[in-house]
Amino acid sequence: MREEATAFVPGHITGFFSAHPADDPTKAGSRGAGLTLTDGVEVTVEPADGEDSTVALDGTEIDVDPVTTVLETLDATARVEADSDLPLGAGFGVSGALALGTALAANRVFECKLSVNELVTIAHGAEVQAGTGLGDVVAQAHGGVPIRLEPGSPQENELDAIPSRARVEYVSFGELSTADVLSGDTDQLTAAGREALSRVVEEPTLLSFMYASRLFARDAGLLTDRVTETIADVSAADGQASMAMLGETVFALGTGLSDAGYEPSVCATHPAGAVLK
Amino acid sequence: MREEATAFVPGHITGFFSAHPADDPTKAGSRGAGLTLTDGVEVTVEPADGEDSTVALDGTEIDVDPVTTVLETLDATARVEADSDLPLGAGFGVSGALALGTALAANRVFECKLSVNELVTIAHGAEVQAGTGLGDVVAQAHGGVPIRLEPGSPQENELDAIPSRARVEYVSFGELSTADVLSGDTDQLTAAGREALSRVVEEPTLLSFMYASRLFARDAGLLTDRVTETIADVSAADGQASMAMLGETVFALGTGLSDAGYEPSVCATHPAGAVLK
Repeated sequence: MREEATAFVPGHITGFFSAHPADDPTKAGSRGAGLTLTDGVEVTVEPADGEDSTVALDGTEIDVDPVTTVLETLDATARVEADSDLPLGAGFGVSGALALGTALAANRVFECKLSVNELVTIAHGAEVQAGTGLGDVVAQAHGGVPIRLEPGSPQENELDAIPSRARVEYVSFGELSTADVLSGDTDQLTAAGREALSRVVEEPTLLSFMYASRLFARDAGLLTDRVTETIADVSAADGQASMAMLGETVFALGTGLSDAGYEPSVCATHPAGAVLK
Repeated sequence: MREEATAFVPGHITGFFSAHPADDPTKAGSRGAGLTLTDGVEVTVEPADGEDSTVALDGTEIDVDPVTTVLETLDATARVEADSDLPLGAGFGVSGALALGTALAANRVFECKLSVNELVTIAHGAEVQAGTGLGDVVAQAHGGVPIRLEPGSPQENELDAIPSRARVEYVSFGELSTADVLSGDTDQLTAAGREALSRVVEEPTLLSFMYASRLFARDAGLLTDRVTETIADVSAADGQASMAMLGETVFALGTGLSDAGYEPSVCATHPAGAVLK
């Protein structure tokens, strides 16, 4: 057993998606597309030495169901300490990052000898079971600007990607509950997500991704007033912005938010998937 | 049309493989596993402005069939300039890197609007048709320490990976012709490759990868005297080394070659697949 291991998992902003529930959490998931981010979560795992497992995010102990599930699946009792550049619950895939980072780091510390696909499957299944996300984990394992053509864990899904990178700006006004949205009527959302995906598959560019994302946010009925106003401000300054799914968060390419007079956080698309440090 | 674009493609050392020919080059390929490397090839593409396409590697014009095929497929007439950290023909996937880097950069310059999978498919098919490689392109698009479970382009294949990173050392004594080896009797090689893969699938760790690679090199009958001697020297110094497929090249984890008294080139596994710069 090693003393500790650390993994970095990029954040992930989903631009649009459709939900695909299934009884088997490795088959459940979402189709859609998003940006993985250089802002992300660093997760350090060390053995808990006979005590109960604990999870701390930026120094504060929290309960994160997917992390608990990952540790139980790996039969590991661990102290998990995470440092995040990103707010929790605001559409950046922080819970997915915690689950995936824990899986990668715990596999190393406890010498579980699992493959990347197996670890991603465990983290994805844990997220789906907890209802905290449907597609972040597989996107975060992939990196870049992933397109999720088919839902589910790596054995089940199909991924492609947009061959581009970009500076990304974002502002976050607060949380939206993924679980609440997904437990409601998702017919309208799924139809909008299907249309957005076919648009991006036809033209896999960042501009078409942003356009499809904006239409999705509107047609799925998820926009809040502040988000609508901010996207309009960026458009008025000739920029490209949309809403992060699911959070009260606006993201823009390049200097879109700065140009519109906001003071955004700044990062970029992340070229790699989650990595051990 | 943009003025130019540059892509970086990691090198790729195959530790073991089995060949899987097929009439359709997108279905042909190899199973196996290898290390992608921070040493790689930087490929810059610019429009040739009415002249014929040219390819230069480290300042010298060369013919690289897969690159020619990629440009023809994208209907692009381009000047391709590549700078490589790695020798050509020595088992580092340089021809695959040239093909994939050209595809990524030309897609951007000529605004072809293809997806990553489509570009990887074009580069993979071009390599297979030229007989210069079977699995490098898909591994180089993936990054990390990829395991190629099923052969072919991204629509056809299945990949997994070993969740580890490592310092990598290598020494190269010269070239081996991939085309010559693959056009010979590959039954012994394929049997050895299948056994190596099942070993690594059972235990996806770097140590098991190195062990499987050494057995493969021996059983496939590909070892040369210098390679055999160098691997033995590293083993005598308690290191892990094997032979790059296909070149007269020895690679080692950590400080394996240095500890054995060699003066190797030093790099590391590359966390990401090929990226636009």
